[in-house]
Amino acid sequence: MTITQPDLSVFEAVESEVRSYCRSWPAIFDRAQGSYLYDEDGRTYLDFFAGAGSLNYGHNNPVLKRALIDYLERDGITHALDMSTTAKRAFLETFRDVVLRPRDMDHKVMFPGPTGTNAVESALKLARKVKGRESIVSFTNAFHGMSLGSLAVTGNAFKRAGAGIPLVHGTPMPFDDYLDGRTPDFIWFERLLEDSGSGLNQPAAVIVETVQGEGGINVARAEWLRALADLCRRHDMLLIVDDIQMGCGRTGPFFSFEEAGIVPDIITVSKSIGGYGLPLALTLFRPELDIWEPGEHNGTFRGNNPAFVTAAAALNTYWADGQMEKQTLARGERIERTLRDIVTEHAHAGATFRGRGLVWGLEFQDPARATAVCRRAFELGLLLETSGPQSEVVKFLPPLTITPEELDEGLRIVTRAVRDTD
Amino acid sequence: MTITQPDLSVFEAVESEVRSYCRSWPAIFDRAQGSYLYDEDGRTYLDFFAGAGSLNYGHNNPVLKRALIDYLERDGITHALDMSTTAKRAFLETFRDVVLRPRDMDHKVMFPGPTGTNAVESALKLARKVKGRESIVSFTNAFHGMSLGSLAVTGNAFKRAGAGIPLVHGTPMPFDDYLDGRTPDFIWFERLLEDSGSGLNQPAAVIVETVQGEGGINVARAEWLRALADLCRRHDMLLIVDDIQMGCGRTGPFFSFEEAGIVPDIITVSKSIGGYGLPLALTLFRPELDIWEPGEHNGTFRGNNPAFVTAAAALNTYWADGQMEKQTLARGERIERTLRDIVTEHAHAGATFRGRGLVWGLEFQDPARATAVCRRAFELGLLLETSGPQSEVVKFLPPLTITPEELDEGLRIVTRAVRDTD
Amino acid sequence: MTITQPDLSVFEAVESEVRSYCRSWPAIFDRAQGSYLYDEDGRTYLDFFAGAGSLNYGHNNPVLKRALIDYLERDGITHALDMSTTAKRAFLETFRDVVLRPRDMDHKVMFPGPTGTNAVESALKLARKVKGRESIVSFTNAFHGMSLGSLAVTGNAFKRAGAGIPLVHGTPMPFDDYLDGRTPDFIWFERLLEDSGSGLNQPAAVIVETVQGEGGINVARAEWLRALADLCRRHDMLLIVDDIQMGCGRTGPFFSFEEAGIVPDIITVSKSIGGYGLPLALTLFRPELDIWEPGEHNGTFRGNNPAFVTAAAALNTYWADGQMEKQTLARGERIERTLRDIVTEHAHAGATFRGRGLVWGLEFQDPARATAVCRRAFELGLLLETSGPQSEVVKFLPPLTITPEELDEGLRIVTRAVRDTD
Amino acid sequence: MTITQPDLSVFEAVESEVRSYCRSWPAIFDRAQGSYLYDEDGRTYLDFFAGAGSLNYGHNNPVLKRALIDYLERDGITHALDMSTTAKRAFLETFRDVVLRPRDMDHKVMFPGPTGTNAVESALKLARKVKGRESIVSFTNAFHGMSLGSLAVTGNAFKRAGAGIPLVHGTPMPFDDYLDGRTPDFIWFERLLEDSGSGLNQPAAVIVETVQGEGGINVARAEWLRALADLCRRHDMLLIVDDIQMGCGRTGPFFSFEEAGIVPDIITVSKSIGGYGLPLALTLFRPELDIWEPGEHNGTFRGNNPAFVTAAAALNTYWADGQMEKQTLARGERIERTLRDIVTEHAHAGATFRGRGLVWGLEFQDPARATAVCRRAFELGLLLETSGPQSEVVKFLPPLTITPEELDEGLRIVTRAVRDTD
Repeated sequence: MTITQPDLSVFEAVESEVRSYCRSWPAIFDRAQGSYLYDEDGRTYLDFFAGAGSLNYGHNNPVLKRALIDYLERDGITHALDMSTTAKRAFLETFRDVVLRPRDMDHKVMFPGPTGTNAVESALKLARKVKGRESIVSFTNAFHGMSLGSLAVTGNAFKRAGAGIPLVHGTPMPFDDYLDGRTPDFIWFERLLEDSGSGLNQPAAVIVETVQGEGGINVARAEWLRALADLCRRHDMLLIVDDIQMGCGRTGPFFSFEEAGIVPDIITVSKSIGGYGLPLALTLFRPELDIWEPGEHNGTFRGNNPAFVTAAAALNTYWADGQMEKQTLARGERIERTLRDIVTEHAHAGATFRGRGLVWGLEFQDPARATAVCRRAFELGLLLETSGPQSEVVKFLPPLTITPEELDEGLRIVTRAVRDTD
Repeated sequence: MTITQPDLSVFEAVESEVRSYCRSWPAIFDRAQGSYLYDEDGRTYLDFFAGAGSLNYGHNNPVLKRALIDYLERDGITHALDMSTTAKRAFLETFRDVVLRPRDMDHKVMFPGPTGTNAVESALKLARKVKGRESIVSFTNAFHGMSLGSLAVTGNAFKRAGAGIPLVHGTPMPFDDYLDGRTPDFIWFERLLEDSGSGLNQPAAVIVETVQGEGGINVARAEWLRALADLCRRHDMLLIVDDIQMGCGRTGPFFSFEEAGIVPDIITVSKSIGGYGLPLALTLFRPELDIWEPGEHNGTFRGNNPAFVTAAAALNTYWADGQMEKQTLARGERIERTLRDIVTEHAHAGATFRGRGLVWGLEFQDPARATAVCRRAFELGLLLETSGPQSEVVKFLPPLTITPEELDEGLRIVTRAVRDTD
Repeated sequence: MTITQPDLSVFEAVESEVRSYCRSWPAIFDRAQGSYLYDEDGRTYLDFFAGAGSLNYGHNNPVLKRALIDYLERDGITHALDMSTTAKRAFLETFRDVVLRPRDMDHKVMFPGPTGTNAVESALKLARKVKGRESIVSFTNAFHGMSLGSLAVTGNAFKRAGAGIPLVHGTPMPFDDYLDGRTPDFIWFERLLEDSGSGLNQPAAVIVETVQGEGGINVARAEWLRALADLCRRHDMLLIVDDIQMGCGRTGPFFSFEEAGIVPDIITVSKSIGGYGLPLALTLFRPELDIWEPGEHNGTFRGNNPAFVTAAAALNTYWADGQMEKQTLARGERIERTLRDIVTEHAHAGATFRGRGLVWGLEFQDPARATAVCRRAFELGLLLETSGPQSEVVKFLPPLTITPEELDEGLRIVTRAVRDTD
Repeated sequence: MTITQPDLSVFEAVESEVRSYCRSWPAIFDRAQGSYLYDEDGRTYLDFFAGAGSLNYGHNNPVLKRALIDYLERDGITHALDMSTTAKRAFLETFRDVVLRPRDMDHKVMFPGPTGTNAVESALKLARKVKGRESIVSFTNAFHGMSLGSLAVTGNAFKRAGAGIPLVHGTPMPFDDYLDGRTPDFIWFERLLEDSGSGLNQPAAVIVETVQGEGGINVARAEWLRALADLCRRHDMLLIVDDIQMGCGRTGPFFSFEEAGIVPDIITVSKSIGGYGLPLALTLFRPELDIWEPGEHNGTFRGNNPAFVTAAAALNTYWADGQMEKQTLARGERIERTLRDIVTEHAHAGATFRGRGLVWGLEFQDPARATAVCRRAFELGLLLETSGPQSEVVKFLPPLTITPEELDEGLRIVTRAVRDTD
């Protein structure tokens, strides 16, 4: 495929230098459907990126689209802050009946503002308020957001430097397997907690991703997560699972922590919860933690009612039974097989892979290789992003609704892109 | 109008205690059109609240609705992070041609995430990065948002306490007329800046609202704003105008600072910029400040393409000429006349009023009166919110598209609600 | 007097660049007695500096010297941390009987470490612990010390920059007459406290000097101090008077705040409390504030027993009756008369003066003039330091024990130095 | 020995509750000489505490006493801030000739104020200024002082809580053997430094004690210190050795780090440097780090000239040759032998010991045992303190000048106290 450079002059002239994805994928996208995007020059792109995990149900999913347009046509409330609406009620009922109850969870639902970082900010506020302590433990290579509260528990030094102030009140601990199995799990963290002379400010909470998406597709083992939950219980810290990227079925079950059999005190959800790529976020917490005063945390776009509509439709369509989970795991095995083959073929390049459900990472010894693979894949019509502190990991994040044929098509392109960059 | 209590049990059981507007307005809203909302029991509510300023063009404005549904129908890209899209390009071109160029502004446009607090966070980050200093000056009774960066420059003690950590790096200064004209403007602020022994950490920037919406409809005079801009220039501080609530025509002109003849270094815009109540936010800054590295600030929902569509449609429809500004000022005079009458009639209650364009405040000596007026107005079918640190101000924020008849209807209800609560 | 440059090569080669007084006074001092210092080249210097207020009883005061040498000769305990010793008991009894009881004060005495900044650090810690709040209000041009806690409430930007971290948790307020009488006292401070939307973090305490020594000999009026004490009471803030430089009789009475008739909650004392220039500091506080746990604040040199000995001797010798206070005020009038004459003579240079007791300041319109006067005075055999954010004030701080003849001698030199620099 | 309770009523009535050593040792001490203290009731106490390391040359050492009294008798300058004096010059020359040059060190000498915490504060300031970063790495169970800068790098949770503000900008790392040899040295620290996604704010410096005195007599191995120095070099961090308690010969050589063959970038010295228990502190740093502006850090009691006199006398007397080091090591072996015997005898109580030079620790499985041993030793006429986060370690810190006979006497008491508390 020959690519004619699109005319990006308006973006270059008017938009800030901060823009980034558009630099990796020099195309002007126009339409999208299911697993495909189309640019204005008529080119087609298969999507292994899925809006960084916001499009688990594909682009412009027809079921959700119907619900959304119907709602708009009938002048359903669009914007309502945190007023009660029929759309919100329907969402709450669906979320309770489809997500919470079947999992024996009685978590309260908070609408903290429509983005992931709003959810993380509210989760940290609540944990600090409940425990009366400032300190939060996060993990190496964590990513939790760009506003100052979330950024303080995010690992990436480049993003942190953007804060313009010293980021404090957070302490990083080693994520699962961070030290390559050379030390027992939590040996350092627990010793710090036990020792009143350690110098660690007693944490209000621990915030963790079960699979670190931005941090390099680092997958925590179920037993590690269980040990962490246990550590939190024994040392009076709340456990916050940031399920913004890995929740909504990305790893198979609706919540990514289900496999480990743990129930976090606080859970943040966003990205695909709206179903249609519309901004929506939730903060869930055990009812006994719901000590908020009315309006103590607020925000203008908490009541994004069109997103309630698509969110409820998505839950009803995909999560009323266990079908989606099964399908995701099956699709994931397909990716795993291909990655195993690639790694075998490219053993000389020190290739390794890891993942769960429909999130996978492929790493090469040479960090630049991941970028080269993604660039080549783009030329071949596949959207594929890197991840990790040095962009050293190729990240696979297709829509959960991808068909086997689309998946195979994408994996063929990947295989070829890896070969072409050898 | 007799109000039957709606069944709010789902909200009470599932949603967090943090919810607030729903407590003032115990109804379950279903549909909305123009200046009216309708609840599921068939009651009609005239809207003097406008989504806290997010619905300047009314609910489900038919022009924007058409554009939005057309876009959705044709499977236009919904979610695209900061990829280049045709919808984004159309928005950027429109914003440049309709807003920036006619005002001789060459500000760069950043999409910092779809909410006001994302815009404020990015503005503060950029100012700190540009100046290499941590400190920001804000004003008494400022409101800039709920994430930690924004909250640190917000005045409200109740909201601040929710942070759970000491909020630092911000210093409050007196807003215009804060000391009732008993001291010269900026006498304290400027002296602190001039005196190397003052103890003030040299600020990177000043952040200000031209009219404080949440803080009690405090209106800064044009000459005060000019003096502030001048102070910033003389003391090497960036001037950030937070135009999230007062921009998009709320005070008459598109930007609320136009009347003062100043051009801020950085401007935050959100709420009504999406036109249809959809989450969208912009951070604008002088091109020489655009020192961001690609991706240094990011976020999932920066590319809310449906909002680009409605935003562009709103700009083209309402801001291609000076009609909207004129109409807003005219409607504002209508409110002003009514408020003057009310104040005269209720001189014994120490009533005062102030405002600009289509944002007005009515204050009583007894702070509880404002809440009583709003409650009575709700019974009479009008949505009206309080504002100010003690909720002591009745806040008027109707859609800019309200008709004279609707405005008169609302003002009649207000007049009656004030009388009924005497 | 012709000055041969002394050989300072050892200091230049071995001591850090941070040294400063030695740069203003290029001499190598060897001995001192009463109001005079002697350098190794045999030159004599009259002392209007008194160890920055640490030598109120003159150099090597013979009464204290006798007590000190006797104590050393008999092998009295030298160093004892906070063990109980006979020397400490004698000091505590004397301090109680001579200082506290006659003033109807029942403050507890803490030995926080032997320097002023130790005392300030402990005072701030205690205030924060008592009130459960982090924020402290200090005043423009305050000086409280160089360790991080004290530095955060110090005004000088040059000193603050040395911290290497942002100094937070402190907010400066205008000292008395800071705005030249153009605004009512405390109008800004009180409004911030009253208004829950002001953005001021509620302070645990206010820390103030009654006369700012390093800040430019700024003298707070008694009524201003009383209004401040009243403000603290009404708004639940502790009042800390830092009497490190102005206490021990510098302004006349033992404590500098006595004239105003106020009794602070917490008082810091150091410098001349040891009597002989030996390191000692006290933190005094109302008994109900004594909620320290044993050892919660500690330090190696708290029990500087030789200083207890000289301190007790000084109190017994000079403070058993009102003689010292009377004498200080009388000597002060002598300085005042001379300064009035100088100011009259040099009206064309915009000279002004202010002071109380035996602390006075002489300011010229041209800030460089103060340094010139001090340099010339040094040539003429008088030690005289500048003060103020731009070193714009000549500071008079002779020993309280100076004789009228010595004082006159010094004032004659000052008069001449001012003329010589015209 | 029967102990009559002394009359402590003055201390109880007048002194703050914060006092602590006086609670462990209920006696009123009066005189002291060499290794012995005497209370006012005529009881004698052998000293295994040595002013917490401030009295390495014993109480009222006759050589130093002579020099001190001579100086006072001849009216040598007592207090001189940082003016040049003959006493200071003599000290600087001696320190250069006896300490620095023989060790090939060209460190500059700063007088940061007379206490250890002043030295630490200045060291941290300088490191931050040189590197332009805020963050400092300290170690578990570190003790560096009570002012806010030093406290932030101190481990003890009880002391930290006294700050009254969150202590930030410091990150604890595991001290040598903290994890009982179960993890490779520095595996965690180095990985954090190498990984740009780790979330560790890049440190300006590392501050370490070679033997943690307050932290429980934790002895760092020479190879661990060398690896730390190497890590600092490779990752652009300054190495600060806090030698306040372990310097001045406590571990054998003058500086405690000499054994490891490392040369720190910055060194803090205090406690015994004055020789006679007089307050004095030094901050030493490589000449290229001496970027202080004159007066950027200051303090009233920097120029404690009597301490210069005793300090110079101590250096000349004890450090002109290698005798003191040899003697200390020999005395240390004597303690070691006794501790080995005790540990063997009390294997059932899980007794362990460790130490270097003349600093040793004896730990029992039951933390309360250490306090019991010290209490019993006091009854038997020996001053002995506990150490460690739970006061679980008996700490041996006799004067370096202790005679073999005195040492044996003390060790016999210890042996008996351990038996008596079995």
